Amino acid sequence: MNDKYKVVLVGAGKLANHLGPHLKKIGHDVVQVYNKTLSKAQNLAEKLSADAIDDLRNVDENADIYIIAVSDDAIAQIAKELNFVNGVVAHTSGTTGMEVLSGLDNYGVFYPLQTFSENAELDMHQVPVIYEANNEHALSKLRHLAMDISNKTAFLNSDERKQLHVSAVFANNFTNHLWAVAQNILERNNIDQSLIVPLINETVNKIQSNPAKNMQTGPALRGDDTTTNEHLLALKDHPIQKGIYELLTHSIQNSKL
Amino acid sequence: MNDKYKVVLVGAGKLANHLGPHLKKIGHDVVQVYNKTLSKAQNLAEKLSADAIDDLRNVDENADIYIIAVSDDAIAQIAKELNFVNGVVAHTSGTTGMEVLSGLDNYGVFYPLQTFSENAELDMHQVPVIYEANNEHALSKLRHLAMDISNKTAFLNSDERKQLHVSAVFANNFTNHLWAVAQNILERNNIDQSLIVPLINETVNKIQSNPAKNMQTGPALRGDDTTTNEHLLALKDHPIQKGIYELLTHSIQNSKL
Repeated sequence: MNDKYKVVLVGAGKLANHLGPHLKKIGHDVVQVYNKTLSKAQNLAEKLSADAIDDLRNVDENADIYIIAVSDDAIAQIAKELNFVNGVVAHTSGTTGMEVLSGLDNYGVFYPLQTFSENAELDMHQVPVIYEANNEHALSKLRHLAMDISNKTAFLNSDERKQLHVSAVFANNFTNHLWAVAQNILERNNIDQSLIVPLINETVNKIQSNPAKNMQTGPALRGDDTTTNEHLLALKDHPIQKGIYELLTHSIQNSKL
Repeated sequence: MNDKYKVVLVGAGKLANHLGPHLKKIGHDVVQVYNKTLSKAQNLAEKLSADAIDDLRNVDENADIYIIAVSDDAIAQIAKELNFVNGVVAHTSGTTGMEVLSGLDNYGVFYPLQTFSENAELDMHQVPVIYEANNEHALSKLRHLAMDISNKTAFLNSDERKQLHVSAVFANNFTNHLWAVAQNILERNNIDQSLIVPLINETVNKIQSNPAKNMQTGPALRGDDTTTNEHLLALKDHPIQKGIYELLTHSIQNSKL
């Protein structure tokens, strides 16, 4: 078995644009990039010396691995149209079950757990890759690719992967939103937004080596009702933010038990 | 005017234990540490070559600055008992109004905005200090001390400082709690907690140079109801966490408008 693969990328979005160049760099051969909008496929394909296609019937049937990197809703239909290929077909979704691909012979999941932005440079070796597969053959290929790409890999079944994705939504989407709220509070009060940057950095420093649960501080944890009531008053014109403050205060106090 | 001060620290908790050594290091003379529990005062006083006291009647009336670093509820009573001093009395609370000290002649606020833990080492020069005062004399002393301690200082009135504190609760206490929830989800599903560390780090990297609002990603922002419904189902046995998921999803979608 050749340990470098012929890969087809199905999708040319943020994930494909991070994954494709990394695959090429570590020696895999990305032979095709598919996107329903040909120009998007071409933009990425050019960087990878791959062919761009906008019709799944033109997918190379002899690739080793087909990576589906599209929105969750589109996976099922794409899987259906790829029923003629021989290689391993994997989707990259955090929440979609593996069984969405069950019409195929060799399939699995290849889920890089990270927040991908258009411009941000990322060291893909540091991005954990979660995999599973429907048979030993597919598992062995996806595991090999995962370990080739990343220093951190894990085999999880679809239920576990979904729980991991929920966790990631809290750890990334929701914390980012709370920072947006924090910045919004400063912005509307004309307060220098850089004042909270050291606090954010220290918050992150602390959880690098300690469970977050043990690092909790603040008025909610102390049961300092005078302060939390003052804060709710300060948010009185912003009902959603006030609601978040109340609920998270309640949750912190509940987690003490 | 001597630009190094005689300082009395009223309180020997986490903040006093970070502030005291830094004051000494940059040349100020901490002459006394007060705490109602003498042994706590002694622990800190020893490090500062200061006197430990447990009775406010023994406070040195000729210090330049008295820094009250106690819980918010205790500030008013301490201020009352310090009515015989001549120097500037400042509290260090984020939310308590300056007027709690209005029985004194020279007073103000000296609020270091950071999360202080017992063991974590902190570079106090990087901790923003917010100050205000009741007259020019007090303002000049507190401003000088703030600028001597920190590279980042700001004059804010009590209302602005309270809004900053609310913002800090979102940016620190609440994000930390969301990480605790994220870790709790992994823990109860026996999933390796280190899998989300790169995600957390990248989340923080991204907001170093961009407003958090612009860096939002995830199913809530995409309006991906299939995924958010799957996630709510995955949280069905954890009503508070499910409530947080619903409310923050709603808030993210509302913030798009």
